[in-house]
Amino acid sequence: MSDPQTPGESPVTSTRLSRRALLGATGVGVVAAAAGGAAIGRATAAESPPPQDVIGFRGTRQAGIITAAQDRLHFCAFDVITDDRAALVALLKRWTTAAERMTRGEQTTPDGAVGLGDYTPPADTGEALGLSASKLTLTIGFGPGLFGPTPAFPDARDRFGLGARRPAALTQLPAFPAERLDPDRSYGDICVQACADDPQVAVHAIRNLARMGFGVVSVRWSQLGFGRTSSTTTSQTTPRNMFGFKDGTNNVRAENTDLLERWVWVKPEDNPASAQWLTGGTYLVARRIRMDIEPWDRGNLLEQEQIIGRTKGEGAPLGQDKEFDAPDFNITSKGSPLIPMTAHVRLAHPDQNNGVRLLRRGYNFTDGSDGFGHLDAGLFFLAFCRDIGKQFVPMQTKLATRDALTEYLIPNGAAAFAIPPGLRDGEWWGQHLFEG
Amino acid sequence: MSDPQTPGESPVTSTRLSRRALLGATGVGVVAAAAGGAAIGRATAAESPPPQDVIGFRGTRQAGIITAAQDRLHFCAFDVITDDRAALVALLKRWTTAAERMTRGEQTTPDGAVGLGDYTPPADTGEALGLSASKLTLTIGFGPGLFGPTPAFPDARDRFGLGARRPAALTQLPAFPAERLDPDRSYGDICVQACADDPQVAVHAIRNLARMGFGVVSVRWSQLGFGRTSSTTTSQTTPRNMFGFKDGTNNVRAENTDLLERWVWVKPEDNPASAQWLTGGTYLVARRIRMDIEPWDRGNLLEQEQIIGRTKGEGAPLGQDKEFDAPDFNITSKGSPLIPMTAHVRLAHPDQNNGVRLLRRGYNFTDGSDGFGHLDAGLFFLAFCRDIGKQFVPMQTKLATRDALTEYLIPNGAAAFAIPPGLRDGEWWGQHLFEG
Repeated sequence: MSDPQTPGESPVTSTRLSRRALLGATGVGVVAAAAGGAAIGRATAAESPPPQDVIGFRGTRQAGIITAAQDRLHFCAFDVITDDRAALVALLKRWTTAAERMTRGEQTTPDGAVGLGDYTPPADTGEALGLSASKLTLTIGFGPGLFGPTPAFPDARDRFGLGARRPAALTQLPAFPAERLDPDRSYGDICVQACADDPQVAVHAIRNLARMGFGVVSVRWSQLGFGRTSSTTTSQTTPRNMFGFKDGTNNVRAENTDLLERWVWVKPEDNPASAQWLTGGTYLVARRIRMDIEPWDRGNLLEQEQIIGRTKGEGAPLGQDKEFDAPDFNITSKGSPLIPMTAHVRLAHPDQNNGVRLLRRGYNFTDGSDGFGHLDAGLFFLAFCRDIGKQFVPMQTKLATRDALTEYLIPNGAAAFAIPPGLRDGEWWGQHLFEG
Repeated sequence: MSDPQTPGESPVTSTRLSRRALLGATGVGVVAAAAGGAAIGRATAAESPPPQDVIGFRGTRQAGIITAAQDRLHFCAFDVITDDRAALVALLKRWTTAAERMTRGEQTTPDGAVGLGDYTPPADTGEALGLSASKLTLTIGFGPGLFGPTPAFPDARDRFGLGARRPAALTQLPAFPAERLDPDRSYGDICVQACADDPQVAVHAIRNLARMGFGVVSVRWSQLGFGRTSSTTTSQTTPRNMFGFKDGTNNVRAENTDLLERWVWVKPEDNPASAQWLTGGTYLVARRIRMDIEPWDRGNLLEQEQIIGRTKGEGAPLGQDKEFDAPDFNITSKGSPLIPMTAHVRLAHPDQNNGVRLLRRGYNFTDGSDGFGHLDAGLFFLAFCRDIGKQFVPMQTKLATRDALTEYLIPNGAAAFAIPPGLRDGEWWGQHLFEG
């Protein structure tokens, strides 16, 4: 048993009695020192993480969606490798307890890395000891395969009796032109998005969840992101992607409550009675989009700006002065549209997509080199929406066939997940899916 | 031509006249707007990066060795793909100018991402616009293959007439037991270590150097590190590695000037007259060490602590109370050494290695999953020393055969580089190697 923590155990305030103090008292008798009950917490009464470093775990929505986008990401997609529904439920309960603790800057269990005694595997792997909560958020989602056969996996079995609970809009993404999907970077039964300002905190969280899942889930793929490419609140400045352009200027933000209701949060009427567990939740589209940065970097400034439809420095729509000026798609110069018909900003703009919006939350990545002398860099695209088929798919279909930017993009990973609403006190991840 | 910047161009103070201002003045005439000479600098007179964010580029030593270890890393090994010595020298000159600028928080050239005009590829890729210098350091090194045939590459040619200038201790690393070296993660003619507190700044720097090197060098491999595993000054707290243990407690630090002189900086007597260009420099050993974290996480606390030889929480040597207490290798418990004969701390300790020290500067990494349900995580080991053959090799030979930790390590990348001393005003990277 890899993790002896029992489900539903109530959080225990870390004691001030550290293992170090115990060792000090017992001198050299380290082998015999019984450290049961002691803990070296990441957050003790004496050194609580600063309040601004803790994002609340429970609430109407899961944290990590409209939470101000943290700087770093570790995203993980898991395969469920058991048919045992009870084992999966037990894991989800244990995950919930550990996840909530980690978002408070605590170890996975009160005993943590050193407290359970010498002859027990530590319940926390320890590499986040001493680090703050770092605004860690952990956001869970459930993939199509968990609900039985899908078009992409027609042989999947409905292992957990969840077939009737599949949300209406949860399917695998369709194939888009120019994709080169790697199955080892796509799909997954469960996802956990870990965002934090300190990457070690995000990595620690995913690693410990993976570890707790031994025998129940296994890591299908994971992706680190080193820099956010979206702002999700109006207080954040717009970051830049690996093309060097500001990204997400026109993103839906936490303050746009009307847009969130219309385009992000799932409503009762979106699903049959059997899938109401998702009401108040959303869907996540995750795509690993490698950028062909070397050819891009050899393009001239005009070409780059015409592909994007914005200036590179300020990020203003072409023909405008400032980043947040509205684009005017009707301006012409010498008889041609100033914002070309193939410009990314035009094709992705709500005015050109029946008003459709997405809440983007992507990250820049660089994963070493590709073996051909180039960096393997790009955008890990994350977007939340109320209906993948009605929002993301038509927009992406248009972009994939007409967007000039597509020439520089190599999408090689894709996945879709249903993201349940937030947890009330006492609830666990997936409770309304499995018990509802 | 991927980068029109001419070598040796003197830095020009960024003007306050931005491309945005120009666009504002010319209205919709964006296509015609001649932006020559304007720049949107990362650091303008009005918004200089805070002084604590800038690490000086020039000096007796290269920055990035004893500089307080920054939080994030992007390390890149390049192959030189030309036989044209003049082209390589020209690149090194251009690199030096760009590197110095970037460490000041500026773009690669005064013209930068948007200033050279519409019909020119931007001289900076732009993704660091608006970010501070973030304590960026760029440290260059030269690999064995640059100097002609080596045991690992017997067919290499001495393309640049540098054979006589090979430093005495610069060879490929020998094969160690249990290694599984991947050639695509090993070796390299030139390395650049980019360290910064913001990973986007480090990634931007490597990416722009790679871009400038088009046709002269290509990326052989690169590695991101998300968290430092060493302290290099006494002011830094000891970080933790992916085993959850504090790492580098006993590291040589900037304040240990005697140790640095003895074990890190190359002395005149270390090399023949033809290789005096390295005097005052050092050697770098880089190893990608994947950790087998899943089996590790299933080991009990006692086993983990006996493998390391320190307590997990405090990081004290077994039998001691505090992290910085000296280990006592003679203490026994029930007839056995309290710090086992196979413990990492014992085998790596200077007292057990004829006093040999290394300056460690490694980083934690996680590069997605391995395709078998596990995270591909570990330690990117970086260590500086005065003589690889006399310091690193004997220590590593002992560790590889006797260290209990070896069971959990899968070294799959390795490289060695000669790291020249720092630059005086007007000097360029490699000048004394190529001109001396």
